[in-house]
Amino acid sequence: MQIISDPREMQKTAEKLRMKHQLIAVVMTMGALHEGHLKLIQLARKKAGTVILTIFVNPRQFGEGEDFHRYPKPFDNDAAMAKTAGVDYLFAPEAAGMYPEDFQTTIATGDIASRLEGEQRPGHFNGVVTVVAKLLHITKPHIAVFGEKDAQQLAVIRRMVDDLNFDVSILEAPLMREEDGLAISSRNRYLSIDERQEATVLYRALMAAEDLVRKGCRESDALIEAARDVIGSVPDTETDYISLVDAATFREVDQLQDNHDYRMLLAVRIGTTRLIDNHRLSP
Amino acid sequence: MQIISDPREMQKTAEKLRMKHQLIAVVMTMGALHEGHLKLIQLARKKAGTVILTIFVNPRQFGEGEDFHRYPKPFDNDAAMAKTAGVDYLFAPEAAGMYPEDFQTTIATGDIASRLEGEQRPGHFNGVVTVVAKLLHITKPHIAVFGEKDAQQLAVIRRMVDDLNFDVSILEAPLMREEDGLAISSRNRYLSIDERQEATVLYRALMAAEDLVRKGCRESDALIEAARDVIGSVPDTETDYISLVDAATFREVDQLQDNHDYRMLLAVRIGTTRLIDNHRLSP
Repeated sequence: MQIISDPREMQKTAEKLRMKHQLIAVVMTMGALHEGHLKLIQLARKKAGTVILTIFVNPRQFGEGEDFHRYPKPFDNDAAMAKTAGVDYLFAPEAAGMYPEDFQTTIATGDIASRLEGEQRPGHFNGVVTVVAKLLHITKPHIAVFGEKDAQQLAVIRRMVDDLNFDVSILEAPLMREEDGLAISSRNRYLSIDERQEATVLYRALMAAEDLVRKGCRESDALIEAARDVIGSVPDTETDYISLVDAATFREVDQLQDNHDYRMLLAVRIGTTRLIDNHRLSP
Repeated sequence: MQIISDPREMQKTAEKLRMKHQLIAVVMTMGALHEGHLKLIQLARKKAGTVILTIFVNPRQFGEGEDFHRYPKPFDNDAAMAKTAGVDYLFAPEAAGMYPEDFQTTIATGDIASRLEGEQRPGHFNGVVTVVAKLLHITKPHIAVFGEKDAQQLAVIRRMVDDLNFDVSILEAPLMREEDGLAISSRNRYLSIDERQEATVLYRALMAAEDLVRKGCRESDALIEAARDVIGSVPDTETDYISLVDAATFREVDQLQDNHDYRMLLAVRIGTTRLIDNHRLSP
């Protein structure tokens, strides 16, 4: 595995690979790799001859008061995991290399990014798509793999890729959960032992909604209420949002139709840690 | 010469050319081709084995009340000129193909686009860089040729290419003038015979400033005043701006330093036609 930090060097390397007709898949991460990331890498490995992993804790997607400065950066461990997982190139740039002085051109998301995470974290998705566009230009992949965990992010990125005519296939890797249902996330390591127990409440809330759907309920309000009740049962939690959206447009719906895909999304604070989760609902 | 209107087909064609190690140069236009465009095509021809010309009157770079609907669209003539000039692929998409329903992701320019044309035409440069980014993704060039005539546009595009890590070389083609100094532009065909005479005032204003610089003047105010006097001598004119900027940053300067590049830029209305021009000043 080769480690590259200079954007221009990574770009030249990627172009050379393309000129040799190599198929490139990229997995973009902020590091602090876990089993979820390894699944993304496995999927990339299966689809392409060359796998590029990017590790960059992008300052521009963190808002004020968010966890940019405490975000874990276990680089040596990440590099070892990446190598074991069969990554060919690890691209890990410095912030100064990605955002030189006088940097000023950004990408602006639209409707699909305006709600939920976009509403809670102003500027977040613009920061995400700007860095994703940069990383797509630098790593020149045929395939880019993203996780279902950040479902709205995935939808926002798909929209950008289509709107701006990027020539890349976006591949979705299914959300990974711990044994007890907690969605695997780098932020789980912020949780105390007690909080770690409580954090399963997100999954339980989603399952309560799914249960109701299976029993025939089609009312958004009732489904959201059911999820809210589960979360309310754990005292230390604060709910940022519980939302039920059309899986394609991310617009909220009142009523579920049969044979159509929806997604319930949650953002909940457990102590000082903000966790998100989501689950597909398909009546 | 092959004419393509489908973005996906153009992109596949460009990718195939790249896979055959063909060097691609693109010239992006809004059609209504003139001698200035032919110079851009000649330069592209000289630099690359494959030349792609794009013709697209981009609705998103026109403001309300601007000349989008009357912008000339002599497509057959353009195609004939392109063929004669040695263009290999003419990409001429429909607006619906470039901006499908639910299109929502755009590119946002920064400081360099905030003044002059950016101030006079709100949203203009965001529209420009968004379509340029799309066309770069669709035509996959190694080289993109732009004219010095739209000097601020060129600077804004260079900034976008650097900021978002596009892997393309931007080539500048010198501004072309008629015998009497009028900068060649598709909008010149809006001018009546009298206005066509008056329109040389932009060039004469720039030359008055250059003259003063040659005589030792280094004060922006005096140079702008000299240009303003020339324009004021023609009754039918209305000046949008006369500005003297650092050639690299497009920030206004008070005083010219020796051995540094500046640019004087003008936007002047002759009757209902808005013309721009510019000239490098290098004391």
